[in-house]
Amino acid sequence: MRKGKTFIIAGPSGVGKGTIIKKLFEGRSDLYFSVSATTRPPRPGEVDGVDYHFITREQFVEWINRNAFLEHAEFVGNLYGTPKKYVDEAMERGQDVILDIEVQGAEQVHRQRPEVVRIFIAPPSWAELERRLTTRGTEDPEKVQKRLSRSREEFLLARYYDYLVINNDLEKAVEEIRAIMAAEHCRAGERYDEIAPAL
Amino acid sequence: MRKGKTFIIAGPSGVGKGTIIKKLFEGRSDLYFSVSATTRPPRPGEVDGVDYHFITREQFVEWINRNAFLEHAEFVGNLYGTPKKYVDEAMERGQDVILDIEVQGAEQVHRQRPEVVRIFIAPPSWAELERRLTTRGTEDPEKVQKRLSRSREEFLLARYYDYLVINNDLEKAVEEIRAIMAAEHCRAGERYDEIAPAL
Repeated sequence: MRKGKTFIIAGPSGVGKGTIIKKLFEGRSDLYFSVSATTRPPRPGEVDGVDYHFITREQFVEWINRNAFLEHAEFVGNLYGTPKKYVDEAMERGQDVILDIEVQGAEQVHRQRPEVVRIFIAPPSWAELERRLTTRGTEDPEKVQKRLSRSREEFLLARYYDYLVINNDLEKAVEEIRAIMAAEHCRAGERYDEIAPAL
Repeated sequence: MRKGKTFIIAGPSGVGKGTIIKKLFEGRSDLYFSVSATTRPPRPGEVDGVDYHFITREQFVEWINRNAFLEHAEFVGNLYGTPKKYVDEAMERGQDVILDIEVQGAEQVHRQRPEVVRIFIAPPSWAELERRLTTRGTEDPEKVQKRLSRSREEFLLARYYDYLVINNDLEKAVEEIRAIMAAEHCRAGERYDEIAPAL
């Protein structure tokens, strides 16, 4: 059976990653969405193993110590991380894994596993990203400006990603990501080792 | 406008490249099939510029001297080559270019233009390739065996190609090549340079 591959979907906040990923999963059972572990307590309605793997800080630190995370970070006092275990199990089952992570997290994953395919999602323009962040209406203008300037900094790293997808048309963006995933399974080196012995 | 890219479709004789390429072009005006130049005289019904660019040996040698070929070779006394001019013009028009060439020719193209994407088409098995070569019925068993052993040698190079597509299902093979072509247009480095200034 064909093994799965891992794909990072990264990009600035507000770029529409969530919508893209939701669309990407429609009708697909051969994909696995990596669920993060966190020390944050569950909110009402959140399900362990679905929304997050809820673990204690002691467990989290223990996982860090035995290098059980692909990446991890602290946000406002809580730890968040991508456990290797579920990612590896999914790939063994033949599922492709989607990691929806921050640009910082993507760097950590890349250092540990350079074979992970990195896809950067860019906005059609900075003006459009500003509009998207503003019409969310949940944040004050100052915070929007801060996010924008951080996004511009993060975008400088997009050049070093494997692929760059522009989200100005949802269908097209999803189609491009599907093409990227299909193409990556055709990479000659790995496929050669797979088929040559049986040919 | 988005510039086109060049894709080499290479693989052993009898693997079904011709059928794949025909299918690939169905309903697509954004693709350009590279027409070879040759010193062989036209056969009845062959059209200059469609089947081949028919040129004299003097012209051919002159083109070699000014490095106007991506690759060229001699077969049974006639010269065959891929002129750069038409390939480059098509890419400038925004068309992707398909080169249907021998494994040897692919090596020449790769040396001149490492950015050209190389796709190797493999048979489902050597037994199946033998069957396909035999049921063509045009060649004696000895020639079939010679071709087979040459194919096995050429396959050793498939590992170093960008992509490897197995032709056991025509539709699937064509779909994979389409995905590869779409994915290659999403490569981060080039796309970054394209979009960053306008963002």
